[in-house]
Amino acid sequence: MTSNYTTQMNAARQRIVTPQMRDVLAVEPISEQVLLEKVAAGKIAIPANKNHKNLVAGAVGEGLRTKVNVNLGVSEDCCNLDLEMKKVENALALKTDAIMDLSTFGRTREFRRKVVETCPVMIGTVPVYDAVAKYKKDPTEISVDEFFQVVEEHAEDGVDFMTIHAGLTRVAVERIRKNMRLTHVVSRGGSVLLEWMEVNQAENPFYANFDRLLDLCVKYDITLSLGDGLRPGCLKDATDAPQIQELIILGELTKACWERDVQVMIEGPGHVPLNEIVANMQLEKKLCHGAPFYVLGPLVTDVAPGYDHITSAIGGAIAATYGADFLCYVTPAEHLRLPDLNDMKEGIIASRIAAHAADIAKGLPGAMDWDNQMSAARKNLDWSGMLDLAIDPEKARAYRESSKPLDEEVCTMCGDLCAVKRSKRVLEDK
Amino acid sequence: MTSNYTTQMNAARQRIVTPQMRDVLAVEPISEQVLLEKVAAGKIAIPANKNHKNLVAGAVGEGLRTKVNVNLGVSEDCCNLDLEMKKVENALALKTDAIMDLSTFGRTREFRRKVVETCPVMIGTVPVYDAVAKYKKDPTEISVDEFFQVVEEHAEDGVDFMTIHAGLTRVAVERIRKNMRLTHVVSRGGSVLLEWMEVNQAENPFYANFDRLLDLCVKYDITLSLGDGLRPGCLKDATDAPQIQELIILGELTKACWERDVQVMIEGPGHVPLNEIVANMQLEKKLCHGAPFYVLGPLVTDVAPGYDHITSAIGGAIAATYGADFLCYVTPAEHLRLPDLNDMKEGIIASRIAAHAADIAKGLPGAMDWDNQMSAARKNLDWSGMLDLAIDPEKARAYRESSKPLDEEVCTMCGDLCAVKRSKRVLEDK
Repeated sequence: MTSNYTTQMNAARQRIVTPQMRDVLAVEPISEQVLLEKVAAGKIAIPANKNHKNLVAGAVGEGLRTKVNVNLGVSEDCCNLDLEMKKVENALALKTDAIMDLSTFGRTREFRRKVVETCPVMIGTVPVYDAVAKYKKDPTEISVDEFFQVVEEHAEDGVDFMTIHAGLTRVAVERIRKNMRLTHVVSRGGSVLLEWMEVNQAENPFYANFDRLLDLCVKYDITLSLGDGLRPGCLKDATDAPQIQELIILGELTKACWERDVQVMIEGPGHVPLNEIVANMQLEKKLCHGAPFYVLGPLVTDVAPGYDHITSAIGGAIAATYGADFLCYVTPAEHLRLPDLNDMKEGIIASRIAAHAADIAKGLPGAMDWDNQMSAARKNLDWSGMLDLAIDPEKARAYRESSKPLDEEVCTMCGDLCAVKRSKRVLEDK
Repeated sequence: MTSNYTTQMNAARQRIVTPQMRDVLAVEPISEQVLLEKVAAGKIAIPANKNHKNLVAGAVGEGLRTKVNVNLGVSEDCCNLDLEMKKVENALALKTDAIMDLSTFGRTREFRRKVVETCPVMIGTVPVYDAVAKYKKDPTEISVDEFFQVVEEHAEDGVDFMTIHAGLTRVAVERIRKNMRLTHVVSRGGSVLLEWMEVNQAENPFYANFDRLLDLCVKYDITLSLGDGLRPGCLKDATDAPQIQELIILGELTKACWERDVQVMIEGPGHVPLNEIVANMQLEKKLCHGAPFYVLGPLVTDVAPGYDHITSAIGGAIAATYGADFLCYVTPAEHLRLPDLNDMKEGIIASRIAAHAADIAKGLPGAMDWDNQMSAARKNLDWSGMLDLAIDPEKARAYRESSKPLDEEVCTMCGDLCAVKRSKRVLEDK
């Protein structure tokens, strides 16, 4: 069967409803008409590589449920493929909406193909990391063709969205030098490209060859996740000139993508003081013309390594209320080590809490139904209902069972002083 | 020595700088002049019972560091005094600003006196709980004199602030009946008074005898923490007529307190959708004339028992940015059981993160210094500095030590791809 459209955006612009759009319509509170309009306008992206055969497509953007992404992958310090596949399995069980394979070492292609094959959710990668793994040479010696070779391999393997730091241009580097930061560049891909540009005295290879990148995107329907190589790595650097300069360039690249019917998401900070989060959301939506916003955190303080799932849940909930569409999870291990299975779980739940709180706050139809069911179970002292409805029934059940009250109807927090029981007696039982 | 003032507020109104104010001035970014003005105007409270001899006074309110409270105490299901004293010790080590003893069973007075004696931080209680413990009869049979007897005992024992649900009046109960809620009344003290009023067909004993209460407050300098008996117990009930009705009455009581130079804090919700938090803060500041606001949460979703330290850190950070002055900690055990030592630690750290993020967001002078020190250590790959500066050095150190990288300068998250190392090389070492 030959398709009469290239990308999901191209289909939407022809008013063709694709199978992937049907997946989205089945689970999101949006009409076919509105979905077509927003995909056509770039306000919603449906990352769906033509080679990701078992994908049940999800969508990211305006008017949709806030999505959560999990990062994993093998690295030099931690190259156990089986453990990483266990993470994939757990992430799916914990209801992640996306998985990014950030492998940087070893049998990366084998792992990547396995992940795509296993996962019905969208898969993302950062090809620059894999280029470092693949060519085993100083990253500054990787050629432009070699970078593109990796992008094409990822595309062939069925990766749905790719982080490309094409906005970290020479103009943006000039901003860094004129506005020195406390923590410089904290993006891995960004720092590799920064050094590459410096040593080779050349423009960012993805910016200089952006049309070549778009050719691949059209061919496979890759969604570009335009990376924020200059995201702030600490509160002090937030919302500064380098960050905003890069965002301006990402906005220009967004238009170039849309001219070719290529879908785009924009990646965002990072570490941001709570009072600057709303401005950051507004700036992205304005400078990038309403493209979906994919944020890492933002972390609202720098002082809590070991608890950055919490610092980022605070920032993420606010961000998603005011414009972010997609939250990259952050685990308690952030800034300290690669996360283990337990860290991953803590990170996913914290991100899902932030996403859900934001969906309620932005008035997503039906978002509060879950809360209302839980509250009704609480009012009725229906413990089995409460535990089943919990975002993590296993943890809730373990807590409950570890400390049984004298009266099984209540809990050990209040015992006989249970306000729910007492107020029900006064207000209902008469 | 006879004192020439009654309460801290009375002293401030006479422009007397008390020893307790000196404690505050030593640690807060506020001038003597401004402190005096704000204590006199009720915008800052310094809970400091004359009988709390070893108190190092703290202050709660406008322009000050956001404070964190820890709840503990013995109950019928958990009446181990030694374990609870261990919690006191841990809470102090984890830098709580206040401890509320919410004991409801057993040797409550012995425990309370021990807590006051041990603690240099402000101590709060809810006398109604203790009345239930003390009189061992149906709470509806407790007499007005018996309630007041307990308040006086707490005052004699040196309790600095007391939660009194005086705003849950017959008028407020009428609002409940005319605006039925999903989870009725979830405040323990509130539900006891509701039933008491119903069975005895009488007005709230603390409202009806408010002057008698104020006499005791003046005598001992008790700060009233006017309780929110009608705080919402679920998102659906948030910001509803009963809640706001009670807040209006608390605002009237606030003025009555201030006429007698009695210090007041207002207690607030509870469960609140993220998008309603700011309005709740503004309402309290308006209806209660700028009195300090002490919030429990707010929890931004109902579905996460086992993770309510996170749901409330999200709400607390926003609340404290927009007006809340004092955060009551919430632990992962909330809605499930009494917290254990580990829950308590998780709860305190989460609340302190929320408070600190808010202090940065509201521009409290010096609040971001800690973050900047941490970020400088990160930029310098100074691992010992990072771990020492962490909000929980013990946890951060354990993470770091559990997963040592091949290169000790970096961490296993990025290994050789460390962006900090690379960008430093490009931007500094030339």
